[in-house]
Amino acid sequence: MTHSDSVIQALEPVQVWDRFERRFDGPAEGNPFQEVTFYAEFCHGNRIVEAEGFYDGDGVYKLRFMPDAEGVWTYVTRSSSPQLDGMQGSFQAVAAQGDNHGPVVVKDAYRFEFADGTPYLPFGTTLYHWVHHENVAEEEETLSELAKASFNKVRMCVLPTGDMHSRQLAFAGSRTEGADVTRFNPAFFAHFEARIMDLQRLGIEADIILFHPYDQGVWGFEQLEPETEDLYLRYVIARLSSFRNVWWSLANEFDFNKYKSMENWDRVCQVVKRFDPYGHLLSIHNGTKMYDYTRTATYDYSKPWITHQSVQHWDSGLMTEWIATHKKPVVLDECCYEGNAARRWGNVPGEELVSRFWDSMVQGGYAAHGEVVNEKSWISRGGKLYGESPERIAFMRSLMEEALPDLWNPPEERACFWEYLGINRPASWELDLPETKEYYIDVVDTWNMKTERLDGTYRGSCTIPLPRQSYLALRAVAAGQ
Amino acid sequence: MTHSDSVIQALEPVQVWDRFERRFDGPAEGNPFQEVTFYAEFCHGNRIVEAEGFYDGDGVYKLRFMPDAEGVWTYVTRSSSPQLDGMQGSFQAVAAQGDNHGPVVVKDAYRFEFADGTPYLPFGTTLYHWVHHENVAEEEETLSELAKASFNKVRMCVLPTGDMHSRQLAFAGSRTEGADVTRFNPAFFAHFEARIMDLQRLGIEADIILFHPYDQGVWGFEQLEPETEDLYLRYVIARLSSFRNVWWSLANEFDFNKYKSMENWDRVCQVVKRFDPYGHLLSIHNGTKMYDYTRTATYDYSKPWITHQSVQHWDSGLMTEWIATHKKPVVLDECCYEGNAARRWGNVPGEELVSRFWDSMVQGGYAAHGEVVNEKSWISRGGKLYGESPERIAFMRSLMEEALPDLWNPPEERACFWEYLGINRPASWELDLPETKEYYIDVVDTWNMKTERLDGTYRGSCTIPLPRQSYLALRAVAAGQ
Repeated sequence: MTHSDSVIQALEPVQVWDRFERRFDGPAEGNPFQEVTFYAEFCHGNRIVEAEGFYDGDGVYKLRFMPDAEGVWTYVTRSSSPQLDGMQGSFQAVAAQGDNHGPVVVKDAYRFEFADGTPYLPFGTTLYHWVHHENVAEEEETLSELAKASFNKVRMCVLPTGDMHSRQLAFAGSRTEGADVTRFNPAFFAHFEARIMDLQRLGIEADIILFHPYDQGVWGFEQLEPETEDLYLRYVIARLSSFRNVWWSLANEFDFNKYKSMENWDRVCQVVKRFDPYGHLLSIHNGTKMYDYTRTATYDYSKPWITHQSVQHWDSGLMTEWIATHKKPVVLDECCYEGNAARRWGNVPGEELVSRFWDSMVQGGYAAHGEVVNEKSWISRGGKLYGESPERIAFMRSLMEEALPDLWNPPEERACFWEYLGINRPASWELDLPETKEYYIDVVDTWNMKTERLDGTYRGSCTIPLPRQSYLALRAVAAGQ
Repeated sequence: MTHSDSVIQALEPVQVWDRFERRFDGPAEGNPFQEVTFYAEFCHGNRIVEAEGFYDGDGVYKLRFMPDAEGVWTYVTRSSSPQLDGMQGSFQAVAAQGDNHGPVVVKDAYRFEFADGTPYLPFGTTLYHWVHHENVAEEEETLSELAKASFNKVRMCVLPTGDMHSRQLAFAGSRTEGADVTRFNPAFFAHFEARIMDLQRLGIEADIILFHPYDQGVWGFEQLEPETEDLYLRYVIARLSSFRNVWWSLANEFDFNKYKSMENWDRVCQVVKRFDPYGHLLSIHNGTKMYDYTRTATYDYSKPWITHQSVQHWDSGLMTEWIATHKKPVVLDECCYEGNAARRWGNVPGEELVSRFWDSMVQGGYAAHGEVVNEKSWISRGGKLYGESPERIAFMRSLMEEALPDLWNPPEERACFWEYLGINRPASWELDLPETKEYYIDVVDTWNMKTERLDGTYRGSCTIPLPRQSYLALRAVAAGQ
């Protein structure tokens, strides 16, 4: 093989934030997952970005890359296998088009935006194991429900729970033989990746949960050795980080894992940070209360590798405090699910879940949905949505996006003011509007999805008469806007 | 005057925990409130208890004492005035009778009891200024409402707010002239004391609030000099501490007072502790959140002079944590009031307030009531009760007292188990009962005030089918009990 043989020319240009992918033949003997190092240096002007490739089975290796700038990108591979080392190539990155706004990034303590500057307001839902049940019809039903609903983020796990009889496992092995944690299952990932692309087409971010504490000792996934954790994380990153709609959630309810120390969580976070070439959003989700009063944060979100706070708590009233404490955006990814499960986390009325969405957002944060109705566990399997909240969340999202870009400003810079009254039923409510402008006041019945504009305009300190009901929001809109 | 002339013989015996009172003539010139020291040493066997007397105007001094043991009590006065010094006497203390169970004391981190060991479960309400409005008919209406309702604790202030045009002030002076904070108004206190006795007859504890931050700069009561604070506290203690149903609340929303430091709050607490001969319950009530996440306790209830935690917070779900933190009983004295006030503290639905009572109590704590309905401010003036919660609180109290003494045990020692489901609507609920006994299960509809016993008995881990509604409590009662 001459040097020029190893130069592979990309045939088609790739959009910025789309995925460049190349396939290479390499060694199949031994355990390539573990034994073959393979990465590439991607160059754009004088910038060099390293991205790891991965073994896809059957002697096939793949390299994926998500360019973040237009123009020519060249690359050269590095590998412990001479067959894979020193391969060169280039491709042309062109402007993003259509719905491609790039990955979501953090703008400040309140705001997310896409890489192209488009505001992003998360309205998440929870589908932990929707790709683990090996029921394609159900997965398609889930996608169809997602297409009708208005969620734009999905939390989903790479690993199954201990009680799932999955053949499709991220690792090699089977339930009878156990997992071979030194090898991966490319077929599982191909399926997983197809679902990430399905979500991407629906405008939905995939908040990928890398670990969880629901293994029940079946697979041993809660007790992996550090080198195995690293191998797993690097493989997942090599495969998935080039999907622009990926977020990393290091773990769900990480503090319910009894085997791992905080030092280990710090370490795995840093592994992701180190190997993800794109700096996708990265957080970790608590099981027990976010902090208790002895000031033990279950995870300290001020650590520099954490981009945002992925909180579990029932009290959305603490949103302001969480934001102020760590000055990173908060997604209340779990604030109890709608439904009638026999566990306290899964049986709040729809009214309450919707209320927590509103309460979070008027404070500058975000909440997420989940439901378990009549033993239909959307949060585990997906399937159909039965709850009363999705429709109200869709209504809320339309109001909030209508209010963009103003809403997306930090509270002190907004021209449109929101108050949310929750269960409270004041006969009237005092607003303290700027003296310098006239405002329309809209009384929003968040549950019945009606907005009524009051007669006249208001300014300064003013008293708003209210109907005697719960779940009202007030919107003050500068007249003429 | 010979020595024997100064011996005054008590004519009638006094019940233990009732009030012994003697009147003395003394100097009226100058400012006796400030200038005359006057106290007595009360002796019972070889115990000596010091109690301060007080100037009641017109050259009259009074000495009050609440004996805590049967038998002969002798006393000798000490005074800076020779006329009041060295007066001796004695009285016979006899056993408490009827409803006289003595003052409420703290038994442990969960329990209050009367001094005679009778359990006391606080079901409080809030009547901050019911004796300040100079409307006797309204005060009597309040008492009549209290007699019908089932509250057994009332929070009430000694000092008026800045916007009350009270003639009846604890201090001398008037609104036009201002308060003379070096002198007191015996007529105000006589009235105040009569109301404390009215409450005592109704079986209601008077949680006396000594300071509050609602002065609006009118009287200067938020900015008293330390020596004036001490004079005031000692006068109040000399007058009121012999009433067995008195509790001390150092302040309402103390942290809203911008003039006083934490050191000063510590100091005034210690003044009360030092001069109250009986160790009445003593706490202080926060305005802002009990703690925030930067671990600034608004007041550290672990301080040794604090007997119990008098909390303001909207989240009764934190009850367990508060108890665990300071290991003192918690009364959630303010958890939002029922009604439709224009402020967030005063417009929760009755359902929510009742829910906070239940939620508090199943965790081993207690909550308190207040209401502001259609601008009728029970919490300030009293008058009539309009809310929907008092009836449900009465229902709850009857259930809880029916469950005594078992309920009053710490949770781990109880034979009757409660769960409260709040807004949650599980289709069924798992209980983990002891394996060794059979239990009846009562499903309590706390809002509609109905209790339904399920068929059969349950033991161990069991699943309880539930109607699809909020505000249910479950009671497991050992069969045969």
